[in-house]
Amino acid sequence: MMHFLTRENHLIYEFNKQNTPVLTVKSGETVTIETYDCFEDQITSEDTPISELDWDRINPATGPIFVEGAQPGDMLKVKIDKLEISSQGVMLTGPDLGVLGHRLEKMEAKILPIKDNHVQFDEVQIPLNKMIGVIGVAPAEGGVNCGTPGAHGGNMDNKMITEGATLYFPVFTEGALFALGDFHAAMGDGEVSVSGIEVAGKATVTLEVIKKANFSFPLLENEDVFSLIVSAKTLDEAAKLGTEMMADVISSQSGKSMSETVMLLSAAAQVEVCQIVDPLMTIRINVPKWLVEQLKISLI
Amino acid sequence: MMHFLTRENHLIYEFNKQNTPVLTVKSGETVTIETYDCFEDQITSEDTPISELDWDRINPATGPIFVEGAQPGDMLKVKIDKLEISSQGVMLTGPDLGVLGHRLEKMEAKILPIKDNHVQFDEVQIPLNKMIGVIGVAPAEGGVNCGTPGAHGGNMDNKMITEGATLYFPVFTEGALFALGDFHAAMGDGEVSVSGIEVAGKATVTLEVIKKANFSFPLLENEDVFSLIVSAKTLDEAAKLGTEMMADVISSQSGKSMSETVMLLSAAAQVEVCQIVDPLMTIRINVPKWLVEQLKISLI
Ligand SMILES: [Ca+2]
Ligand SMILES: [Ca+2]
Ligand SMILES: [Ca+2]
Ligand SMILES: [Ca+2]
Ligand SMILES: [Ca+2]
Repeated sequence: MMHFLTRENHLIYEFNKQNTPVLTVKSGETVTIETYDCFEDQITSEDTPISELDWDRINPATGPIFVEGAQPGDMLKVKIDKLEISSQGVMLTGPDLGVLGHRLEKMEAKILPIKDNHVQFDEVQIPLNKMIGVIGVAPAEGGVNCGTPGAHGGNMDNKMITEGATLYFPVFTEGALFALGDFHAAMGDGEVSVSGIEVAGKATVTLEVIKKANFSFPLLENEDVFSLIVSAKTLDEAAKLGTEMMADVISSQSGKSMSETVMLLSAAAQVEVCQIVDPLMTIRINVPKWLVEQLKISLI
Repeated sequence: MMHFLTRENHLIYEFNKQNTPVLTVKSGETVTIETYDCFEDQITSEDTPISELDWDRINPATGPIFVEGAQPGDMLKVKIDKLEISSQGVMLTGPDLGVLGHRLEKMEAKILPIKDNHVQFDEVQIPLNKMIGVIGVAPAEGGVNCGTPGAHGGNMDNKMITEGATLYFPVFTEGALFALGDFHAAMGDGEVSVSGIEVAGKATVTLEVIKKANFSFPLLENEDVFSLIVSAKTLDEAAKLGTEMMADVISSQSGKSMSETVMLLSAAAQVEVCQIVDPLMTIRINVPKWLVEQLKISLI
């Protein structure tokens, strides 16, 4: 069955087991989810007074969706079938926001028209790389603001989360309680200003329960790689944590010693930056599929 | 004129203004430089007793080369024309080395045959991505061990430093005092075990003095991007420092405000990891050439 979830009255601002589901689907079903941009579409022109923004309505995610059969200890497989974005983007910077916040004197928004697969930024045409900034499930404990990334997913701001990619989230509560939002028309690794090119849109995803889990953080799969997405207080900490988790799974699956496993990762895996501006920092550890295939192991 | 610099008796273990040049070239000349691997070829089989390695002979660089006309405040442009590697690689891991050093109980070396553009690691065939680990000039002050990266270059362990790439180093002393070593047959971003697939080899480079400098860290140029390579105590610090340096140059060249500049970088530049295991951490900030061209600026 195909489902459609509209955005009005179907928003969360934190991922939380206590949230009431707004839709229930069976494992294997597909749902199209409508989203606002990360400002809940409050910035409609460069003259919108930023001082009048309702900051309690930032980073809304549409959901949560209860997936039948999902239990703690399972994984929720999320295939991103389609990603559609609106025809206008917005960026915002200001004092204390992003890497250069200390160099900025006032809040400034920029409205960016999108057409012919490019974003128009003054004289510059930026090629689209559509992606989902916030996507995840209810965390193990308490509420996690939709602006923060973690083991449950959330605000990972990872440009690999795009049409065609598949994510595997650890499930922490019955039904998983899946939600997503915060689409970007384009974003570079790092997201250094604190915003991508923020857009509203629609994502079509297929949700499936898998009755096991190798990793305690989200794993992404695309044509080329398996990618473990890990957030921590610093990039350094996230990189170390992610490398160790990946090495543990590869070593136990392949029977290679830890020493040989870390050599293989050193030679062939990529430590990459997702974002450096959310309350936690996010790193991905990319392992090429040819390596997994040649080791005759499965990371799923 | 073509020069050839052999490796015997032409090694440094630290970059330092005080080093005596072993070759003098004119600006624009090409030199082929022969190198040892980072263990100075001391590990010849998996039975080489690691306890007997001479640790004072680690990370040798061949040089230094005095480039006529180079003065402090200039840039040394280094085009990597050709990179040839030996037919056998070696990796080493052990306690306290690399990201997983705390999980390893003894030093282990692995000898890795190279043929048909692949490194053979047990049953796994790793595609070559040849690169130069250590490359640079004498630093502003004192000596910097060849195992450490910095503003002068050195042990940046950046897989983009490969055949076809051009580097621009800030010059800190007359003649620049250029040297290189530590080739890898393959390495992933992060270099998580502390070594790539270490090989000896030969690099052919063209050295040219440029009478200006925009950046205080090395800049790399290839077909697709300009990439600023910045090292600092943490990845987070390197990422911030690099982003700010890049934003300052782009803003002053383009006339864009700092606010718009950081938005452009957030949408289109990539913060990427070079290595996370040397005494300092290394990040690169990649700016696509299409952006530089559309802004009608020059980063060189
Ligand atoms: Ca975000
Ligand atoms: Ca966003
Ligand atoms: Ca190195
Ligand atoms: Ca090396
Ligand atoms: Ca290294």
